[in-house]
Amino acid sequence: MLFKNIQMIDPAFRVLEDMTVAVRGDTIAYIGSWKGLPEGEDWGEIYDGRGKLLIPGLYNIHAHTPMTLLRGYGENLSLHDWLNQKIFPFEARLTAEDIYYGYLLGVAEMVRFGTVSSTDMYFQGDSLARAILDSGFKSNMSISVTCFDDRDYKELPIYKETLALLDKYHLAGGGRVKIDLSLHGEYTSTPKVAAGLAQHCKSLGLNMHVHLSETQSEHEGSKMRHGKTPPRYFADQGIFDSPTTAAHCVWVDEDDLDILADKGVTIATNPISNLKLASGICPIPRAKAKGINIGLGTDSVASNNSLNLFEELKLYALLHKTTANDPTLITPEEAFACATINGALSQRRENCGSIALGHKADLVVLDTTVPNMQPCHHQLFNLVYSADGGDVRLTMVDGQILYRDGKWPTLDMDNILKHVNASCRRIVKELDK
Amino acid sequence: MLFKNIQMIDPAFRVLEDMTVAVRGDTIAYIGSWKGLPEGEDWGEIYDGRGKLLIPGLYNIHAHTPMTLLRGYGENLSLHDWLNQKIFPFEARLTAEDIYYGYLLGVAEMVRFGTVSSTDMYFQGDSLARAILDSGFKSNMSISVTCFDDRDYKELPIYKETLALLDKYHLAGGGRVKIDLSLHGEYTSTPKVAAGLAQHCKSLGLNMHVHLSETQSEHEGSKMRHGKTPPRYFADQGIFDSPTTAAHCVWVDEDDLDILADKGVTIATNPISNLKLASGICPIPRAKAKGINIGLGTDSVASNNSLNLFEELKLYALLHKTTANDPTLITPEEAFACATINGALSQRRENCGSIALGHKADLVVLDTTVPNMQPCHHQLFNLVYSADGGDVRLTMVDGQILYRDGKWPTLDMDNILKHVNASCRRIVKELDK
Repeated sequence: MLFKNIQMIDPAFRVLEDMTVAVRGDTIAYIGSWKGLPEGEDWGEIYDGRGKLLIPGLYNIHAHTPMTLLRGYGENLSLHDWLNQKIFPFEARLTAEDIYYGYLLGVAEMVRFGTVSSTDMYFQGDSLARAILDSGFKSNMSISVTCFDDRDYKELPIYKETLALLDKYHLAGGGRVKIDLSLHGEYTSTPKVAAGLAQHCKSLGLNMHVHLSETQSEHEGSKMRHGKTPPRYFADQGIFDSPTTAAHCVWVDEDDLDILADKGVTIATNPISNLKLASGICPIPRAKAKGINIGLGTDSVASNNSLNLFEELKLYALLHKTTANDPTLITPEEAFACATINGALSQRRENCGSIALGHKADLVVLDTTVPNMQPCHHQLFNLVYSADGGDVRLTMVDGQILYRDGKWPTLDMDNILKHVNASCRRIVKELDK
Repeated sequence: MLFKNIQMIDPAFRVLEDMTVAVRGDTIAYIGSWKGLPEGEDWGEIYDGRGKLLIPGLYNIHAHTPMTLLRGYGENLSLHDWLNQKIFPFEARLTAEDIYYGYLLGVAEMVRFGTVSSTDMYFQGDSLARAILDSGFKSNMSISVTCFDDRDYKELPIYKETLALLDKYHLAGGGRVKIDLSLHGEYTSTPKVAAGLAQHCKSLGLNMHVHLSETQSEHEGSKMRHGKTPPRYFADQGIFDSPTTAAHCVWVDEDDLDILADKGVTIATNPISNLKLASGICPIPRAKAKGINIGLGTDSVASNNSLNLFEELKLYALLHKTTANDPTLITPEEAFACATINGALSQRRENCGSIALGHKADLVVLDTTVPNMQPCHHQLFNLVYSADGGDVRLTMVDGQILYRDGKWPTLDMDNILKHVNASCRRIVKELDK
């Protein structure tokens, strides 16, 4: 495919006009003028880019994608009641097939809103991997370790499950699937398991994905349980010896931020989920000052309740101006980096996250003729502050179109919705008994 | 027009299935079953409502709509630099025609995102009124008084301008246009002018629209200037003796909230603008506890940077859970009331704001088959937390369709964009000199 006469955001976040961008296979093979395009190659469809903006696809680096099934199931409860009365009983009834279709629905939503990749944590790894492969989506996926007794990590069933997943799916789909390791959290594991998992992750050279200091009770509880904060505890168990994406980091203090900076941990901030669950607000200005890599996540649909990273992008770009009482804080360039390249780097996908020659063709086309994108004093400002997820016209992952003008070429939407709705009816019926 | 087989939100925020809703002229003439529809009347087009949700149109009760022209013009500056280097010089160059077309662009955006009415404050009243009448939109509009010297209100040119506007436009367009009076703010006026305007408003029986305690410097400055907070000062000048919509109210204290409650003032909260300008966060939980009427506003595009009330609705529904550390606070029902009926009541449009027999046909259709609205455990929860502005398929004001499936039947979009872009080019060129 070849995009012609299109505006684009380059890797330095500059807006380039009237560009030609060509895709060969899964790769961006040409960026330049129409005249400079090498002759004699058949690029396939020529996409008329007038009135359109080409951006790198968005990275959602903290998600539990199959939880689309729980959208709007149980609202306005205390965290305890919400988890114990609604979320956990529902999740306990999810089958492998439920999770497969729930994931596909999440992909449909994410690509409709311009997201090309997730860092995903859930269970039923085969369902996750199959959904990623079948849909054409990209993901660093993990099944997360929880363990409340003093066992060795290698005694847990998940140890072998993870090895099987690695064997079967790691780098499958031309590298679209990556298997991360994951510790669910400080409060849902024991020191021995954490240390064992950390060692395993390091020996395999994989990425780590964790929840970290999301709530005050978790953060303060860790001090009681271990005599240290969750970041200090994780560092001591060796968790951060692998490249780590740590979700939330709402309650971290200065020393914690120093640890994260020192260990090269990426913060996956989830502002909408944190507001909805009344968890608090991540101290982004202080994290930024330490040079910590920051990316954006939606968390699960159950605490969001959508997978629309444009919402997350705008809120991220605005929220911290007020918490720091400084309207000059978080530039649109910084915010857009968090939604794209920072996420790609956290997934260790060095050839992703920006529109550059030789990079993977993870591309999104936005309509800039819609009223909310007019007039245009600066297209990047409009993109960050004014774009609506519904302005996305096309989403491509590794050169394959996953969404275009209200249609999902790789997904059988009728079948997905049929399965998802049947799953929900079945589970709610069981729970209502 | 007749909507058939459609889901709808009723005035008690219940979700009703498989409804028939019929519109005669500008009014909702039937709500019920298909079988119960009186025979023999030609309702015009029958709209197939399967997979759709019918909601009352949204009310944006604090806007400066023509400022679409300044979208993304000057970002990440201190409030002082932003206003003095960017906003004021740009606004000083706006002609009546610029404002007319800027307003029309704002209408295009608002109706695309399901808003049917605004409470609008700007200048060039003829341009505002003509744009409202020509587009089919609904608005309580005002031109706001600013005055820095010790004159009588009736000596200001705006006094006569307002009388002329009232004469020419009040209740025009079948009541779609209402003229409010407006004092820009405590810090941009003098006591004599405030008292004169208040008296004039009361004698005419009109609504009042003000900015109130938006920033800390305004709030604290008022104590220095007058020995009282802005709400106390306004109350003493008689401003609140007319039904008042007070925008922002970020810095109000307990006594201030008691005044607002006592005087029946509506708070127009603008969470996105307040975050963007680092103004702070309105103490909604305390205002709610006092029984104050609360509606939602976008403020201007320059501080938002869109007119998408779905963004405001979701943020409003989530933000205060965290500031109050209580995830049970602000129910979806309450949030949706703020976006609809509360706004209509603040405009004193008692026959608007909900889908009820005899009410004005201000109706919005949402697509519920999109992935972000599936599955559906509870449609109101999906509406508040999961809907994207881009899910709107049709917006009707007083029975007239203003937006449908990417088209604006009452607006010449090409002409609007031509004028808006020419205005921006001209003004930026002048400013760059």
